[in-house]
Amino acid sequence: MPTSRPTAAPTPARNEDDQRFLDDFATMSTFGATPEGGVDRQAATEPDNAQRRWFADLLEENGLRVVYDRIGNQFGLLERVPGAPYVVVGSHMDSQPTAGRFDGAYGVLAAAHAVFRVASEEPDPASPPVHNLAVVNWFNEEGSRFEPSMMGSAVYTGRLGLETALATRDRTGTTVAEALAPTGFLGDGDGPEAVFCAEIHIEQGRVLEDSGSSIGLVSASWAASKYEITVRGEQAHSGATVMPDRRDALLGASLLVVAARELADRFPGVLHTAVGKLDVYPNSPVVVASRVELLLDLRSPDEDVLARANELLLERVAEIEAETGVTVERHLSHAWGVNPYQPSGVDLARSSAERLGLSSEPIMTVAGHDSINMKEHVPTVMLFVPSVSGVSHNVGEYTEDADLIAGLTLLTDVTRRLGAGELGPATPYVPGEDRA
Amino acid sequence: MPTSRPTAAPTPARNEDDQRFLDDFATMSTFGATPEGGVDRQAATEPDNAQRRWFADLLEENGLRVVYDRIGNQFGLLERVPGAPYVVVGSHMDSQPTAGRFDGAYGVLAAAHAVFRVASEEPDPASPPVHNLAVVNWFNEEGSRFEPSMMGSAVYTGRLGLETALATRDRTGTTVAEALAPTGFLGDGDGPEAVFCAEIHIEQGRVLEDSGSSIGLVSASWAASKYEITVRGEQAHSGATVMPDRRDALLGASLLVVAARELADRFPGVLHTAVGKLDVYPNSPVVVASRVELLLDLRSPDEDVLARANELLLERVAEIEAETGVTVERHLSHAWGVNPYQPSGVDLARSSAERLGLSSEPIMTVAGHDSINMKEHVPTVMLFVPSVSGVSHNVGEYTEDADLIAGLTLLTDVTRRLGAGELGPATPYVPGEDRA
Repeated sequence: MPTSRPTAAPTPARNEDDQRFLDDFATMSTFGATPEGGVDRQAATEPDNAQRRWFADLLEENGLRVVYDRIGNQFGLLERVPGAPYVVVGSHMDSQPTAGRFDGAYGVLAAAHAVFRVASEEPDPASPPVHNLAVVNWFNEEGSRFEPSMMGSAVYTGRLGLETALATRDRTGTTVAEALAPTGFLGDGDGPEAVFCAEIHIEQGRVLEDSGSSIGLVSASWAASKYEITVRGEQAHSGATVMPDRRDALLGASLLVVAARELADRFPGVLHTAVGKLDVYPNSPVVVASRVELLLDLRSPDEDVLARANELLLERVAEIEAETGVTVERHLSHAWGVNPYQPSGVDLARSSAERLGLSSEPIMTVAGHDSINMKEHVPTVMLFVPSVSGVSHNVGEYTEDADLIAGLTLLTDVTRRLGAGELGPATPYVPGEDRA
Repeated sequence: MPTSRPTAAPTPARNEDDQRFLDDFATMSTFGATPEGGVDRQAATEPDNAQRRWFADLLEENGLRVVYDRIGNQFGLLERVPGAPYVVVGSHMDSQPTAGRFDGAYGVLAAAHAVFRVASEEPDPASPPVHNLAVVNWFNEEGSRFEPSMMGSAVYTGRLGLETALATRDRTGTTVAEALAPTGFLGDGDGPEAVFCAEIHIEQGRVLEDSGSSIGLVSASWAASKYEITVRGEQAHSGATVMPDRRDALLGASLLVVAARELADRFPGVLHTAVGKLDVYPNSPVVVASRVELLLDLRSPDEDVLARANELLLERVAEIEAETGVTVERHLSHAWGVNPYQPSGVDLARSSAERLGLSSEPIMTVAGHDSINMKEHVPTVMLFVPSVSGVSHNVGEYTEDADLIAGLTLLTDVTRRLGAGELGPATPYVPGEDRA
């Protein structure tokens, strides 16, 4: 069992609504549950589908209208002001193959309960509803079955073409379209018009735990460079071929994995590097590898550090080529700078936290989130709750009940205020406009 | 095109029999032919099966009786002395997924033509046949579809249990028994009784090319230690998790790949090391690997060097564990010392080469061959012909026609002399005896 943090969130009296939230979260965690206490709910697999059916029922029981767009994003709509645009609140319910229970799922359920709570309140005559409210469960945020990640929000925001996304294949050759077709989750619309967005997520780090804060107010996302790398050597007998004749693609790839780690060690705390995926060809016990494909990421909260790390990586690639005789092809598949969330949204969330007596602090997000796509179009509030020991993408991922409830309480207030137009006028984003 | 070696084998007048051999070899190379000029004939796949059907016809057309044992080894029997044991001559026709045309296939066809030639000769009254002759095409020497390699000869020689071999599964879950059942290549006997063995193979190195010899007389096999290694780390978010918290199994595995190469560089020429197969779990773009499985081999012609290399590897493993926080489990799956072929067989082959005017030299084999299993039971002659540039397990593998013919000529003489009992009395090996 994880230990309690020294300064836990103030425990609110656990009222009926809070208990209902925790009960619903326990139910959610049964979909794709693994024996180790985690979940396996990759996009459009049966556990993901079953959970979506359950979630649609929950939304409808609470008076929301459930609709799907053309990429399978699931929306629960609460129309309070006919024809007005929506405050879109939510996250994703799909998971990595061996994942924890909280990543994404917490944010979707918290969004639903926040909207249920706001919907059940008597309208405040001093601050009547201006916008409608939408709960969203974005399709395929994790990208473990269908690359790239954040697919549903990328299509919604026009960053990724619909046809490209639908034609993406998993390892067995099944396309997104084929996987979604039998589920009933492929709609014929483009989803609601958005005017603001909010997302709450577990931190996936330990900044909040270390400082003892209950809430992270996400001010920006780290800069990142993501490379698709192919190392080419020459196939040879792994026993008989004399060593100087070998051009071993796996040796070249291994030196790159080590180089990535050494780069991070050179910039402690301000550079994260990773190779999570690496495939060897022909991957035979008696054959020197002719080809290795791998994904290498560099991330930093400082664009200058990232630029320097990219230079050093390039230098090291050239050395590895010279030392081993392999060739290294690098393709920069994704690149973005340090990207701020709208400060007005951060301020609104901070004032809500203060009003509720929740300790908070600004934080940056290293991981990608659907809200990063959304903030390009509408003012977006991103909130974090603590992760015990920063464990993430792991069945041992854990957040205390008190922190889950504190986050829900804050998200409810933020949703209410965004819906009441407290952030002032904003230009609505109409999804699919450029497709029309 | 490969260039000619400076001192090519003396080109024999290309007679009809030699041309027939080259034509048959060209036909063989069409089975599983790849666009790059190589072959893909993994064990019990359709190209392997089609080639075996063609080969059975060739053996029968030349008067041999074709039989299969319980693991699918294919034998062509020439019974000249009723009830006498057999000189077993051959190699394997299966291949790696992207392989050259010569590996194994040359040795099987050369064995067949050697036996055809001996069969067609008038018996020498001074040296009449004492033993019968068998051509063999061993099942699954490569081990790329079903591990371990050298499966057919391992079962024949009792080193591997029949039931274990038949129950071995490929990546799709198909067992050897299931793959062989529909082919008609699963017999109900144990194969012929053997008294001597001979195999010819391409060198898969460049010792012969460098020295200009036509024939390698294999005196021994290198010592080897083969490890199955599991590196365990902890799954984590590959972006968000702070670097000091990561226990990255792929980093640990990569350091091992690099360490293996550095070991080889410490003992130039007398230590070959390799990691050919490496699998990452969960192998996701955004997850730090929790587990990597890999196969690491050390091979040396010097047992003391191998022992020292094993010690150094163990030291390095401990360092890697300490540096990265991973754990490394090593299982020594195969280990053998420097293993001589019977010197009487080497001498017989040398005298044949001299008589035929072929330059030869002693050589060791680094790669495994079916004859390594056979020499544990009966005196065995292993011969090499040159490989251009030492290229092996690669579609660019090449041996000159003149060298192929020289090898066939020598193998014919060796087969004739073994069949005439020139190596003296030997105890026949009865396959399956311990199963009875």
